[in-house]
Amino acid sequence: MADNRPIGVFDSGLGGLTVLRELEKEMPNENFVYFGDTSRVPYGSKSNATIRQYALQDEKFLLSKNVKYIIAACGTVSAVASDTAKELPVKFMGVVENTARDAVNTTKTKKIGVIGTTATINNKAYEKYISKLCPEAEVTSVDCPLFVPLVEAGWIEKDDIVVRKTAERYLTTIIQKKVDTLILGCTHYPVLSEVIGDIMGESVTLINAGVTTAKAVKAELKSLDLLNDSTNKPKRALYVSDKTSSFSKVAKILLGGEVDEQSVEQVDITKI
Amino acid sequence: MADNRPIGVFDSGLGGLTVLRELEKEMPNENFVYFGDTSRVPYGSKSNATIRQYALQDEKFLLSKNVKYIIAACGTVSAVASDTAKELPVKFMGVVENTARDAVNTTKTKKIGVIGTTATINNKAYEKYISKLCPEAEVTSVDCPLFVPLVEAGWIEKDDIVVRKTAERYLTTIIQKKVDTLILGCTHYPVLSEVIGDIMGESVTLINAGVTTAKAVKAELKSLDLLNDSTNKPKRALYVSDKTSSFSKVAKILLGGEVDEQSVEQVDITKI
Repeated sequence: MADNRPIGVFDSGLGGLTVLRELEKEMPNENFVYFGDTSRVPYGSKSNATIRQYALQDEKFLLSKNVKYIIAACGTVSAVASDTAKELPVKFMGVVENTARDAVNTTKTKKIGVIGTTATINNKAYEKYISKLCPEAEVTSVDCPLFVPLVEAGWIEKDDIVVRKTAERYLTTIIQKKVDTLILGCTHYPVLSEVIGDIMGESVTLINAGVTTAKAVKAELKSLDLLNDSTNKPKRALYVSDKTSSFSKVAKILLGGEVDEQSVEQVDITKI
Repeated sequence: MADNRPIGVFDSGLGGLTVLRELEKEMPNENFVYFGDTSRVPYGSKSNATIRQYALQDEKFLLSKNVKYIIAACGTVSAVASDTAKELPVKFMGVVENTARDAVNTTKTKKIGVIGTTATINNKAYEKYISKLCPEAEVTSVDCPLFVPLVEAGWIEKDDIVVRKTAERYLTTIIQKKVDTLILGCTHYPVLSEVIGDIMGESVTLINAGVTTAKAVKAELKSLDLLNDSTNKPKRALYVSDKTSSFSKVAKILLGGEVDEQSVEQVDITKI
């Protein structure tokens, strides 16, 4: 029994497009609905109560689009508000738990680094999951508040001095701790993989939440026999709560390809 | 006839605290009510329709606090939404018009630079006011999206290589145009005055919207005989729409002094 309904993905903004990119790569036959809450981005600096309220609205919107699965492609939401998903009538996956498991399975030295937004790091979400899976793991976490604006400005080249010096400053503590695995705990960060990988060195494995999540969702849908079996060309529907002037530029950086701005619809998420 | 009601100040977030700082310095006898819309910051990346809607709610909140004057301490709002103030029952001042006038009065070469958020620069608000006041002025505008996150991270020292290289990159075009006056068109930027001044050189005058606005508001209140004549210790009431974990740290950077977090009240601005 296949299920041809779309997979829903939401994020506080456009960062989750790096997850959508990996989902589409892993499951090229699926339809996707993406919601980016661009009128209220970033969630990272908001209080937990506010993040919970926003997550509930975002989930309600995706359900109105008849999705079969909801992915919180947002470290902040999956860290703070995963329990909002308990009452959902569809399957749900937050990026944090799976990514933590992938890191635990990857590390040999049991020394894991985590970089993310201030909210994700302050909530210690990755630490909690990692220590549940592997109590002896030593986790070093650092928040990198400049990375999102750098990515959105398109300052992403590994030889750009501002990018490099910023990354070096954030990663110093993590390098000193001699981790062998580093979680990119924010959906914008895969765009900076090259400079981060360069600074960390070849002996350190970077964990990209998009790649990890895409594999896990595919495996789950397959085991439940819920993959799409239609031979129609798959559809991608993009919704945002505010269509900003920089949308196309930023979406292109994150999705790794052109986005037709006309096909993107704006919704008033506070009225869902 | 004095008027002892407080002066209301609002901003998309905490940046307006640099304006409050100058207002308190210029009018040490006045009471102030500040509202920072921290749950919806930044306005800079929002659409004009959204910014207008937010400005109306912010003004309504300040009116509920019985203010005698409203200051939009936010380049984005005064640029995009100044007309929301037309129906206000109290006097209103946006930072843009006054700052533009100050720049026109300051320049000798009639070459003026403007730096600000992407929304402020895209809306050409400063250019419009400047060309109205001085049609022959040549204005060079550059948006500097990394400046706000740098300030909020506390990366503000003039010899910090990330700060310096970022500022040099943004200011290159403006230096080439040989301006003699540079408008700091975003309330966060006065915190970076030192590095910006250093790069621009002594021959360029920096225009700080807070200083300009404080002088203009005082002059207007004085001419209308509406200054506070009470001898009570003046009060400062701070309200935010979201009390974030970084509030105290960021407020201290912008206000230039400690803020008692307990005295700051959170309000649900969407229900005003």
